[in-house]
Amino acid sequence: MTIKHHRARTAEGQWQDVPVLEYKQDGAAPFRNVTRQVLFEDPALACQMRYFEVAANGHTTLERHQHIHAVMIVRGRGECLVGDEVFAVHQHDLVQVPPLTWHQFRAPADGPLGFLCLVNAERDRPQLPSAAELAELRQNPRRAEFIRV
Amino acid sequence: MTIKHHRARTAEGQWQDVPVLEYKQDGAAPFRNVTRQVLFEDPALACQMRYFEVAANGHTTLERHQHIHAVMIVRGRGECLVGDEVFAVHQHDLVQVPPLTWHQFRAPADGPLGFLCLVNAERDRPQLPSAAELAELRQNPRRAEFIRV
Repeated sequence: MTIKHHRARTAEGQWQDVPVLEYKQDGAAPFRNVTRQVLFEDPALACQMRYFEVAANGHTTLERHQHIHAVMIVRGRGECLVGDEVFAVHQHDLVQVPPLTWHQFRAPADGPLGFLCLVNAERDRPQLPSAAELAELRQNPRRAEFIRV
Repeated sequence: MTIKHHRARTAEGQWQDVPVLEYKQDGAAPFRNVTRQVLFEDPALACQMRYFEVAANGHTTLERHQHIHAVMIVRGRGECLVGDEVFAVHQHDLVQVPPLTWHQFRAPADGPLGFLCLVNAERDRPQLPSAAELAELRQNPRRAEFIRV
């Protein structure tokens, strides 16, 4: 399929010819209120750019993997966990998730969090935390309060 | 250098720990009023994400190359040429530039045009149009009116 040179934004978090997809196969991993859109993917491009939108009160899967994430917040605001840190994010902030680093994004109660997430086209599958890893993650009180599984 | 997990936007088109660079070496190619910032670049990432800002009345270099561009407008609005097409772009629109396709971005008279531009980390150098190629580009009146060299 030939991609159009120009695909306009049609509404907040929506674009011409960009379907809104399931975040993950239902039941494959815990998450809440997340959609996925593939903005750029091409045999000539070594990365994929996706747009994820977490609706109010939702969260992405708590996971880690060898490949890194390069993220820009596009819509709304929220909080995220990257390794030991939990921090607030706002429009156009940048987030980088290093290899094998636990991470999770959460939307606030009153609105969505939408972000670009750049990954290598060839990448490993995400890992979910084991019971022992979850217990370790929860030893940090701020992290314990933040994570959703 | 270890990159921070979180780099906040500090102002429109500015981020913590992201220096504003020259677009190109002065005199290397024609352009006007453009800056460059590297938002994501990492040995583990197969692409680079850059942010270019074209100030009012400015334009990027008219060029082409084998590697493709995946662009999202982030700030303001403007116009661009991709191949045979000249079109207006607005915040969060997507633009894709195929291989060996002439392209140029222009800011309007009254404000900046800022955009993300994703490229493969390993890529070829841009080509500038020869006199014969420019003459051919100018055979299309809309393109002739648009291009700046």
